[in-house]
Amino acid sequence: MSLTNHQFRLAARPEGLLKRSDFHYTEEPVHDPGPGQILVKILYLSLDPAMRGWMNEGKSYIAPVGIGDVMRAGAVGKVIASQNPGFSVGDHVVGMFGAQEYALSDGKGVSKIDPKLAPLPVFLGTLGMPGLTAYFGLLEVGALKAGDTVVVSGAAGAVGMPVGQIAKIKGARAVGLAGSPEKCRYVVKELGFDACIDYKKEDVKEALRQHCPNGINVYFDNVGGAILDAALTQLARGARVVISGAISQYNSTTGVKGPENYLSLLVNSARMEGFVVFNYAARYAEALREMAGWYSAGKLKSREDIAEGFERFPETLLRLFSGENFGKQVLKVADA
Amino acid sequence: MSLTNHQFRLAARPEGLLKRSDFHYTEEPVHDPGPGQILVKILYLSLDPAMRGWMNEGKSYIAPVGIGDVMRAGAVGKVIASQNPGFSVGDHVVGMFGAQEYALSDGKGVSKIDPKLAPLPVFLGTLGMPGLTAYFGLLEVGALKAGDTVVVSGAAGAVGMPVGQIAKIKGARAVGLAGSPEKCRYVVKELGFDACIDYKKEDVKEALRQHCPNGINVYFDNVGGAILDAALTQLARGARVVISGAISQYNSTTGVKGPENYLSLLVNSARMEGFVVFNYAARYAEALREMAGWYSAGKLKSREDIAEGFERFPETLLRLFSGENFGKQVLKVADA
Repeated sequence: MSLTNHQFRLAARPEGLLKRSDFHYTEEPVHDPGPGQILVKILYLSLDPAMRGWMNEGKSYIAPVGIGDVMRAGAVGKVIASQNPGFSVGDHVVGMFGAQEYALSDGKGVSKIDPKLAPLPVFLGTLGMPGLTAYFGLLEVGALKAGDTVVVSGAAGAVGMPVGQIAKIKGARAVGLAGSPEKCRYVVKELGFDACIDYKKEDVKEALRQHCPNGINVYFDNVGGAILDAALTQLARGARVVISGAISQYNSTTGVKGPENYLSLLVNSARMEGFVVFNYAARYAEALREMAGWYSAGKLKSREDIAEGFERFPETLLRLFSGENFGKQVLKVADA
Repeated sequence: MSLTNHQFRLAARPEGLLKRSDFHYTEEPVHDPGPGQILVKILYLSLDPAMRGWMNEGKSYIAPVGIGDVMRAGAVGKVIASQNPGFSVGDHVVGMFGAQEYALSDGKGVSKIDPKLAPLPVFLGTLGMPGLTAYFGLLEVGALKAGDTVVVSGAAGAVGMPVGQIAKIKGARAVGLAGSPEKCRYVVKELGFDACIDYKKEDVKEALRQHCPNGINVYFDNVGGAILDAALTQLARGARVVISGAISQYNSTTGVKGPENYLSLLVNSARMEGFVVFNYAARYAEALREMAGWYSAGKLKSREDIAEGFERFPETLLRLFSGENFGKQVLKVADA
């Protein structure tokens, strides 16, 4: 083969909002797979808020991306050469293939997907890591019970959409927070949330009080900052605050804003708990089976925001932090 | 009888640190108990950080003290008249009798205590509410396991002392934080903590790193503020942060300082959980039996800081907020 690969490699650790110059755009020939390896042609790249954290130095739940390394990224692709008996040419696969056009992999952490079940980008969203994050965060960390009132921020984002829908499937009430009237309308009309608060226009604390007259039982937080603080004022006794992310804080150059209403945890005998989806890796298959069933039955809907062109990777990633994305942000890299 | 009662009644809601003028010192005749009532002569009053919160307006886990009402306070006393078949004259009792010299009670929430088991002030500390707070906070909320590293702030205070000692009894490692070399020495030499950090002199984050090389499994927080933030930087994976109090924040006039390192909960799949000891009321007797056994065996020691003279109630309460108290702060009101 004489294919050419392009990559985005980390050039510098960003200060505040990332810039295109924090990456090097590089080119190299594609190598044939060695024994046990597969060669994957990337079709769709996943853009996730957590990627901003991976660009920072320091101890976290996962090692930072090294300077000069291909940026870590989830992706869906197609096997175009295989020396691994577990994969055949033509298989569609999902894995952490990195921000590049072709990836060599030993197959570890790579899963085959069924393109007849759903369009490929869905496997980066509702039937992928964000969906699993919603599933385990809500059901395990949030210990959801039927009849609970669930509030989720980033409701029109990749994690928020399934959080509210799974809450409804499980007999809870779902209230979303999103950043535009269109997003709010979608979340209520299409996804079946009970209500959605436009945090850019409404008084969030007052709106939460109105939509959650008995208080919040589970607050699933993707954003941090002022919205987390508003939610803390409305907790029911025994509430669970699930810390899944804090996108409002990831680009701060003046430090993270701590939740000043945290003593609501004491007053309400409530808890705030963080997690990373990798904790539940042993149960991914089981969860995905259940979610695929809901998806096929039309109970779990998905929306993707699809940008095109590999070279637009940095700009597409930035859309997450401005809130421009509507649904799961992916980048189409190539046709199948 | 023609006894005279004195009381401290709430005169104003304090701004910042409470002042003597936030109370009215009042006098009234003592009334005979009615049917079902007992008359209690107060011997020792309990001074607790939570009292500051009870003086504020607004929704909390318990109604605020009303303006004009006798200040809510725990106390130990002696029954001097009884029209309640559950109590006899001469019984020693503990209950929320209020900041006064004599209390009428219907007996609800009042427990008889055995003065042969321990000196009376101990029933306001290690064998009272603070001890129960330590017990349930550490074992239930903190889900302590043998081998854990436990860190507790306010280690020489009423709750902190039993937290570290119960941790040791249960096979954990105990590291305290206290505000003077004398307190630190006491906590290690007398109470058997493994280490104690003088937060006024040491770099808390660095000292925690040194004393907890494998991270903190349970952080039992009585203080909030900068110490909570330092502890959050040193959590082990799956850590439990128990929010029992936040004495550094109770008198703030500029709002509570939120824990800016709260995303450590996400990175470490850790949780922060608040509670009030009243949640466990059904299990007080069982816990007190176990703690009395440890106390009698010399495994659970107690230290009280005893001020004298009912009229010094406001000034004695203030000692908690300056950190002057060394051990459980009580106020002796009368001889038995």
